[in-house]
Amino acid sequence: MDETKRQAIRDLLIEYGLLLDDDKLEAWVELFTADCDYRIVTRENVEQNLPNVLIWCKGKNMLADRITSYRHVNEYNLHWDCHTISPPRIAAEADGSWRVAASYSLFQTTLEGQSRLFSVGRYRARVVFNDNAPRIREMVVVADTGSILTLLATPI
Amino acid sequence: MDETKRQAIRDLLIEYGLLLDDDKLEAWVELFTADCDYRIVTRENVEQNLPNVLIWCKGKNMLADRITSYRHVNEYNLHWDCHTISPPRIAAEADGSWRVAASYSLFQTTLEGQSRLFSVGRYRARVVFNDNAPRIREMVVVADTGSILTLLATPI
Amino acid sequence: MDETKRQAIRDLLIEYGLLLDDDKLEAWVELFTADCDYRIVTRENVEQNLPNVLIWCKGKNMLADRITSYRHVNEYNLHWDCHTISPPRIAAEADGSWRVAASYSLFQTTLEGQSRLFSVGRYRARVVFNDNAPRIREMVVVADTGSILTLLATPI
Repeated sequence: MDETKRQAIRDLLIEYGLLLDDDKLEAWVELFTADCDYRIVTRENVEQNLPNVLIWCKGKNMLADRITSYRHVNEYNLHWDCHTISPPRIAAEADGSWRVAASYSLFQTTLEGQSRLFSVGRYRARVVFNDNAPRIREMVVVADTGSILTLLATPI
Repeated sequence: MDETKRQAIRDLLIEYGLLLDDDKLEAWVELFTADCDYRIVTRENVEQNLPNVLIWCKGKNMLADRITSYRHVNEYNLHWDCHTISPPRIAAEADGSWRVAASYSLFQTTLEGQSRLFSVGRYRARVVFNDNAPRIREMVVVADTGSILTLLATPI
Repeated sequence: MDETKRQAIRDLLIEYGLLLDDDKLEAWVELFTADCDYRIVTRENVEQNLPNVLIWCKGKNMLADRITSYRHVNEYNLHWDCHTISPPRIAAEADGSWRVAASYSLFQTTLEGQSRLFSVGRYRARVVFNDNAPRIREMVVVADTGSILTLLATPI
């Protein structure tokens, strides 16, 4: 039972990366709970206890709005994403939720086929099960790479 | 039973990457079925529904021929490969085969020890079980990176 | 039972990467056995059967000493590490130990948030179970990237 849930969490994270890379951003939003919290912060800010965030969406609706907005207005930094995500550390919490941590490297490729390293860092997530399906209630993306601020268009 | 097969498929993909990186290309060919289909395409071509392929081998014999040829004639782009492959998404199909998807990043290092990003993208594979051993019947490597065409010597 | 151990070994490798990236180097040392052997070698030296090693620590004490020394004297190459580690190949040995192989890519980021590829290669480890907890008895890091010799401060 426990191992079944852990594998479901691993599969959730796999889905997370593949949906982003396939530009299925609307389906990616469905991996979150209605009351989710999604934010991207730099490691520099975390280490210095600074409150800055690069992106902060409270609730799935806000996340969905951001994607809609991206679909309609984005005209710069057209690219393809490719995430490489390590297998995650998974720990059960007393309240029935799960803490998940995994490192990622994210590469972006221009439409002309030039690839480059865009961001490295780690996911720190809280996952809950709704009707046996794991969903992300909290996702903090801690990006080591800080030089990407102005280029962030799609989620990490 | 089902989870056992899934783990065997995960192990197959691990083997795939390690054999390539260890330059055990002949053993890598043995991961495929006799009637396999292996091709490398660019994402640009996939998105535009263009038929171009960078490499296309129909059947294990053709794959083996390509490796033999590489062994005998390759004199340029001598390098070591290093694949980082994410854990795969695995889905059972009605016909008993399995669909597998996983992202990869591939780094190449010159014999002088200089490493660089060579290609990022994803594997889209169809896996079947022969006598309880998983084998690749179809492998489509969708490379985001398109600027590698002229340098492709070893498989991705 | 066997699959439980394999999953514990996978989790050990996940812990290995996350502890290094979180700069929890003292906790990372605890993943090794007292009589461990840790070394970093270049692939160039391995292929040529040369005995050179970049780092060699015999025993957990020596590994701990190196970390202590790093904590006190390091003043150059301040950075954050980010490992992406592929799922490992795991094979049981006749003596009850386990052989583990996995590829890695390691990125370093300056404190100003500039990331770059630092090293790619693979882990070749021997793992044993002490009181049901897996520990690393031998770790050989085979780095494809050879140009890092002078910059090695933290473990790979």
